[in-house]
Amino acid sequence: MVKVQGKHFRSIWREGNQLGFNIVDQTCLPNSFSVIEITSVDEAANAISTMQVRGAPLIGATAAYGMALAMHLDPSDKSIQNNYQKLLDTRPTAINLKWALDKMRAALLPLGKEKREKAAFDEALWIADDDVANCSAIGDHGLGIIRHLAGESSNNKTDPINILTHCNAGWLATVDWGTALAPIYKAHDAGIDVHVWVDETRPRNQGASLTAWELGRHGVPHTVIVDNTGGHLMQHGMVDMCIVGSDRTTREGDVCNKIGTYLKALAAKDNDVPFYVALPYSTIDWTLRDGVLEIPIEQRDPREITHITRGDSTVALMPEDTMVANYGFDVTPARLVTGLITERGICAASEEGLVALYPENA
Amino acid sequence: MVKVQGKHFRSIWREGNQLGFNIVDQTCLPNSFSVIEITSVDEAANAISTMQVRGAPLIGATAAYGMALAMHLDPSDKSIQNNYQKLLDTRPTAINLKWALDKMRAALLPLGKEKREKAAFDEALWIADDDVANCSAIGDHGLGIIRHLAGESSNNKTDPINILTHCNAGWLATVDWGTALAPIYKAHDAGIDVHVWVDETRPRNQGASLTAWELGRHGVPHTVIVDNTGGHLMQHGMVDMCIVGSDRTTREGDVCNKIGTYLKALAAKDNDVPFYVALPYSTIDWTLRDGVLEIPIEQRDPREITHITRGDSTVALMPEDTMVANYGFDVTPARLVTGLITERGICAASEEGLVALYPENA
Repeated sequence: MVKVQGKHFRSIWREGNQLGFNIVDQTCLPNSFSVIEITSVDEAANAISTMQVRGAPLIGATAAYGMALAMHLDPSDKSIQNNYQKLLDTRPTAINLKWALDKMRAALLPLGKEKREKAAFDEALWIADDDVANCSAIGDHGLGIIRHLAGESSNNKTDPINILTHCNAGWLATVDWGTALAPIYKAHDAGIDVHVWVDETRPRNQGASLTAWELGRHGVPHTVIVDNTGGHLMQHGMVDMCIVGSDRTTREGDVCNKIGTYLKALAAKDNDVPFYVALPYSTIDWTLRDGVLEIPIEQRDPREITHITRGDSTVALMPEDTMVANYGFDVTPARLVTGLITERGICAASEEGLVALYPENA
Repeated sequence: MVKVQGKHFRSIWREGNQLGFNIVDQTCLPNSFSVIEITSVDEAANAISTMQVRGAPLIGATAAYGMALAMHLDPSDKSIQNNYQKLLDTRPTAINLKWALDKMRAALLPLGKEKREKAAFDEALWIADDDVANCSAIGDHGLGIIRHLAGESSNNKTDPINILTHCNAGWLATVDWGTALAPIYKAHDAGIDVHVWVDETRPRNQGASLTAWELGRHGVPHTVIVDNTGGHLMQHGMVDMCIVGSDRTTREGDVCNKIGTYLKALAAKDNDVPFYVALPYSTIDWTLRDGVLEIPIEQRDPREITHITRGDSTVALMPEDTMVANYGFDVTPARLVTGLITERGICAASEEGLVALYPENA
């Protein structure tokens, strides 16, 4: 959806007779818009683990295309199993990776080897298209919430609807549209005056680097704040709602998302600000109940915290040899979530709410 | 208290027949320990507004010495009034600045002009010495809390007492010892196994740059985390208590401190982690009741958020021309505070609690 040099892009795509597939190297943003071609399963695994691609839905789609490239080289059962594990091991927290790999494996194993490459690319494309459709539907459902808020505040037409988001759950985190940002894009396109508070999202600054960039390309008014600021804004009535994405959601509605999401949910609760989580069904882990106890939380390289690099410049942020701990995600308990925005509609963050929308998982 | 090249330093001091006074330029830490001499009231005002010195008690002491330098040049009533205003205008949130300037003005106005310079330096030294004594007493009272926690957890001697702090409320924020860090230094010196979770404290990174440096010089084990992390740690039982400082505390116990403090207090409440605020009496604003409504919150230069500079290197963190909002402080309502640690003892964060310790303000 993002338009760069007059062309609309998805975040992952193939062209013509291309063997490999293309991604936007997100580690280069916002400094440069750099498209790279992935031509092997190892490159795909590397793109996920180094976060050239990130965002739960997008890493699922990337793993699917990675598996398709593996089938080109070796369509054996052993190749399916080995590459399933290789791709699954790239990142531990987001469940979409496993969801996509399970779909690929289930589609491929019953087939004869000679059919596997084509079937794998077909299935990967289906996963990508499915994500686009789901994110668009999430946008439509979330738009209803924003429209409602805009109607309520119509007595004071000078104020925009102020929406706080954390990390990047936009076009760059999915195949297109985004999860948390889809309702915002649709509201902006519908002429509703929205303004986004963008948490910078340390340590990797996905808010400052990616969300601010995306919103800027689309012309959505936004203001970047440090992650410490949201509570103050909510205390002063400057936030009308929060929307975030999710990397894994339990069947009871606990939401795992970028580290720091839980703190914003606490502040929203304390100030009666609606706190919504936008997610496609591929993000739901029906096998888990208690997110705090059960979801594995990725720990990443200390250097993400101790140093900042942009372009050719690197600065050290603390005394040399300082110990750091770098947890990538936290879990927001369902009790703090106003509602889940899914492709099937909006539901309470609870087993009852989710099963009502997804009765096949009752 | 910090020892550099074999010498113990206060954060502000005069030597021998020196006219001016010395400070550590905190904007250079942790890259270099740079002592600069302040020789005029304008330099003093500039040191406060550019945050070469920061921390509520230290900016009070700096303003006092600045007034003394003004008296050296011009001991008139008009000079007292003009420089009172000049120094007061440097920063709006911390009340210690006004407290120190009120003390200076009250001491100087009744005197003949010829006595004002000496009296001003005497009063400034009194303010500095008073802060050292108060911070040491805060350390003793806070030590009792840590000792109690260490006693409770004595069945499991392998675990240290894990204390989370936000921003820098240490030696560098006061004249010596610190407020929030004083109990930690005293516990460490008493042989109690303490470990400090240091919030990096965006946007100016006082935690990563100053607190980590201070604790490192003193040999106190510590781990730097991004500001997003504290909630996750508390959910997992990895924080035994929080201690922070304060820039202004209302008579009903609301606490204004570095932006983001409120979010940590919410997480502490949600996880039954004790949340203490350490402050000397100079930080209490007896004229205010509701901190959220009444305390002025400083807004600072957007460039503090958009760029990071260390030494000779600067990196841009977001797309050019991105709008940012930079609020320096937030207010933690008294209901989230377990107790206030003052030089007179520990009290509830309430008017009753504070007046019981300070009956002269009933």
